[in-house]
Amino acid sequence: MDTAANPARTMRAVLVDEQGLRLGRDYPVPEPAPGEVRIRTLLAGICNTDLEILRGYAGFRGVPGHEFVGIVDAVGGAGDTQLLGRRMVGEINIGCGTCAMCRAGRVSHCFERTALGIRGRDGALADYFCLPRANLHPVPDAIPDEAAVFVEPLAAACRIPEQVHLGPSQRVVVLGDGKLGLLVAQVLALTGCRLTVVGRHASKLSILARRGIETRLDGQGEGGEADVVVECTGQPGGLAAGRRMLRPEGTLVLKSTYHGPVEVDFSDMVVDEIRVVGSRCGPFAPALRLLVQGLVDVSSLVEAEYSLDQAPAAFEHAGRKGALKVLVRP
Amino acid sequence: MDTAANPARTMRAVLVDEQGLRLGRDYPVPEPAPGEVRIRTLLAGICNTDLEILRGYAGFRGVPGHEFVGIVDAVGGAGDTQLLGRRMVGEINIGCGTCAMCRAGRVSHCFERTALGIRGRDGALADYFCLPRANLHPVPDAIPDEAAVFVEPLAAACRIPEQVHLGPSQRVVVLGDGKLGLLVAQVLALTGCRLTVVGRHASKLSILARRGIETRLDGQGEGGEADVVVECTGQPGGLAAGRRMLRPEGTLVLKSTYHGPVEVDFSDMVVDEIRVVGSRCGPFAPALRLLVQGLVDVSSLVEAEYSLDQAPAAFEHAGRKGALKVLVRP
Repeated sequence: MDTAANPARTMRAVLVDEQGLRLGRDYPVPEPAPGEVRIRTLLAGICNTDLEILRGYAGFRGVPGHEFVGIVDAVGGAGDTQLLGRRMVGEINIGCGTCAMCRAGRVSHCFERTALGIRGRDGALADYFCLPRANLHPVPDAIPDEAAVFVEPLAAACRIPEQVHLGPSQRVVVLGDGKLGLLVAQVLALTGCRLTVVGRHASKLSILARRGIETRLDGQGEGGEADVVVECTGQPGGLAAGRRMLRPEGTLVLKSTYHGPVEVDFSDMVVDEIRVVGSRCGPFAPALRLLVQGLVDVSSLVEAEYSLDQAPAAFEHAGRKGALKVLVRP
Repeated sequence: MDTAANPARTMRAVLVDEQGLRLGRDYPVPEPAPGEVRIRTLLAGICNTDLEILRGYAGFRGVPGHEFVGIVDAVGGAGDTQLLGRRMVGEINIGCGTCAMCRAGRVSHCFERTALGIRGRDGALADYFCLPRANLHPVPDAIPDEAAVFVEPLAAACRIPEQVHLGPSQRVVVLGDGKLGLLVAQVLALTGCRLTVVGRHASKLSILARRGIETRLDGQGEGGEADVVVECTGQPGGLAAGRRMLRPEGTLVLKSTYHGPVEVDFSDMVVDEIRVVGSRCGPFAPALRLLVQGLVDVSSLVEAEYSLDQAPAAFEHAGRKGALKVLVRP
């Protein structure tokens, strides 16, 4: 193993198991396999998915955390030692590399995939973790750690224009003013489209209003006639609310995941020729470019920062109703 | 009024009201308004929508029928008398002409629209009916009446490639072997795509198999991994069945309308980034071109023909389980 430093054999790590969440202090430092690197976490974010994992989502057991910026600390096998010491962010899905999805470049849809801190692979809420070299993106110096840690959710926002053509004259509604909604709104506003963000928290909407983005408190005034609605509420009712705001032949983009089935009138969607597009993980390179250009403000989205030693308190804070991004710094 | 003939003041017409369906023999012959023409029905088809109308769908009262071929018999106002005597098919939606949808060319989505024999306007299951001149398409001599009467549902099949890009290497499944499924399958097969039609009636699937289209009886073998699934079953269960056959990032086209809401797991659709596209009425010009070229066989889809005097029997026949197209000839 090629290492720049020689870390202790054990480390701190947030651990999720049947008993819930705790901070482990003697979790083994992982060894990078060939093709992988070990990363020392500089800063990690807590995402709604992490909170869902605590409630049993995806049946995950191990170290959570998939939003991170870190330093390459070791490279596995005969890997490129020039990576050592470089600051990186990384894509979270790891495919099998051989199936039809992987060969078509759709790694995030590989049936055998693991996902950092979500599915079959320990995540970034620890002193160290491992990731394939191919998943890494170097972070330009212009991007501070506090912004780089947002690249993963910002990439998820960039997934939308990758899937749906957004013209600058279109009427677009972002439904939801949570962490993801605020990122999605800023990305879509860059098209110059006629954007309205509908949310339930005046304080959060004001982050967008200060940037000149039109906002509206839920229930105040009618949306109607949107070309595209992006559903980011995380609430099952958001789907029907978003659909009501669409014009015929409009597109409803779903970013939220809900537990359990939702009832929908599909006849009505056939008659109005509605399109529904599920949207998940996105491309890192455009997210990095937007941050380098200073086109997206993520600093306003930081609610609090905790040390790794205070991780349980950080999760408690992140779980509060209406909380924005909580960061954890090892 | 400019008329070629001088028809009687009353005519035969299929009538739907609270008591159900009957043949009226003294229904007034309609007068075409300015911009409209009166058409003498040569042949009309009974569609599933007509059967649903009998069950109360859309709350329609009046003369049903929207699949037709006919002869222009009179033109309203100072209309073009050169149209008289010409054989026509016609688009069924009539917009207000002034709303945003109409101005954008989306007449079929005008909120104030009428629809021939479906919504606010008497239809073609009569000796005569009226339609705006702008809705008409002349029928080339190469297309017999028995084929021209299929232009409206064939146009609905042509709507799919208008909404969704279908590549010739894609795996496509058409779910359902009813009248619409058989037309959709023939249109999609023209792309050269890897098409499988899944149905419940060996006799109907054989119509496609004779044309070299791959078919499969429902429940025999797995679909899986389709790029595009077109749901034409008319059954609420078809939606979930179609979704199961899709690959991640695949597209589910909905042609069926169902009564009432359907339960769907949307989280699963977000994770797999599924697209759902509602699809309804389509373009007439390509449908006519396909018939002129002889690329779609509609004659095999004719189950029976009745005279207008026998219209109640024709409806009874069309409503039998598994029935194909029933035609009515005044």
